[in-house]
Amino acid sequence: MNLILLFDDDFTTEPGMVRLTGRRLRHLKEVHRAAVGKTLTVGHANGAIGTGEILSMDNNAVEMTVSLIEPPPAPLPLTLILALPRPKVLNRVIIAATSMGVKRLVLINAVRVEKSFWQSPRVSEENLLAQSVLGLEQAKDTQLPEILLKKRFKPFVEDELPAMARGTEKLVAHPYDATACPMGVGGPTTLAVGPEGGFIPYEIDKLEEAGFDAVSMGERILRVESAIPALLSRLYPL
Amino acid sequence: MNLILLFDDDFTTEPGMVRLTGRRLRHLKEVHRAAVGKTLTVGHANGAIGTGEILSMDNNAVEMTVSLIEPPPAPLPLTLILALPRPKVLNRVIIAATSMGVKRLVLINAVRVEKSFWQSPRVSEENLLAQSVLGLEQAKDTQLPEILLKKRFKPFVEDELPAMARGTEKLVAHPYDATACPMGVGGPTTLAVGPEGGFIPYEIDKLEEAGFDAVSMGERILRVESAIPALLSRLYPL
Repeated sequence: MNLILLFDDDFTTEPGMVRLTGRRLRHLKEVHRAAVGKTLTVGHANGAIGTGEILSMDNNAVEMTVSLIEPPPAPLPLTLILALPRPKVLNRVIIAATSMGVKRLVLINAVRVEKSFWQSPRVSEENLLAQSVLGLEQAKDTQLPEILLKKRFKPFVEDELPAMARGTEKLVAHPYDATACPMGVGGPTTLAVGPEGGFIPYEIDKLEEAGFDAVSMGERILRVESAIPALLSRLYPL
Repeated sequence: MNLILLFDDDFTTEPGMVRLTGRRLRHLKEVHRAAVGKTLTVGHANGAIGTGEILSMDNNAVEMTVSLIEPPPAPLPLTLILALPRPKVLNRVIIAATSMGVKRLVLINAVRVEKSFWQSPRVSEENLLAQSVLGLEQAKDTQLPEILLKKRFKPFVEDELPAMARGTEKLVAHPYDATACPMGVGGPTTLAVGPEGGFIPYEIDKLEEAGFDAVSMGERILRVESAIPALLSRLYPL
């Protein structure tokens, strides 16, 4: 983790003091090999970034005094609509999207999403939050994404998506019969990405009815965990 | 797999006939749910792409008649110099790079590469080839990458890298003190990417002495498996 994300519960009654246990304590000891006096980058969930100095550390807890002064990096003005990936890929995709600054992610159903994927414990709110935190810690960000689950494709695309995507550039990544993905759109975008094997023609049609343009990244078909960084990097260059 | 990669040994003595067993047979049965008469995309390693029609299939083998007519997608004119990632990440990185068209990958040592990484069975020639094949099958490509292992940073960067990178754009991805990564360089490039935690200043100095410019992807620090698609998508847009 390049930043230690702090939550309200981590703050003690003493001003500017935090007490961490569990995963973050272990990480500080084992990866950072941190010791008393060391200063680390920290951030307050949905708040500012700054530094934390370790005041005490034992096997049970680490205590730090923190100073939170800088704003977190700017979010991407993008909503990612993603066909639910297979469970073993989901965590990596959440981390990739969150680390790149995605703040709204909608996991949807599609014909090529296997029904069993929705039963995975990885789709739990608890796990999605845990993976989002890993993505933020990776990217030195603090702003938690909103992750929505939409298990019925048609009602979502017909009834909810038009309002959600209103006023944004609407793109669906689709390797077939599509124009090249634009570069540097910069502004608000809603980007839909299909499952392994792609959206079926009916789904593309429904998305096009909702105002989405099919765009391609070229003839190479990428895994979703590579396609998302490649697409976001193209839509939002520095 | 979006393409079934065929090797010389797969061809039978009958012209245009292949016989597959093992992983590809299982994949055809379990994922493609293929049956006699079905036509699939195939490609010949380092050769052309086309179609294969299943003539027979049982628990031991599948036989196809193949027609190879189209060239594979264009390679990226890029050499990727990559600090050896931790073993559990290495496979995904090889697949990501290969699927995006990287044809020369040099895995190098760096101070922040743990020595144990080099002992992993994942660094074996056999595994690197297997992962490259997965990347090619994903991207419908046939051209195998060359993967070189350079376990000593200084001799490689001083003695071998200058000749290897001659005449190319030379970039090292470095999130600190660097200018923005250029977009659409298009031409031949040598791109160096550091380990988790980055190259140390000495290593950046040595790369700069070899003519490399430090470039940044912004203040967000990405995992290597996200950074590579993001960088390649920026350097080589459609």
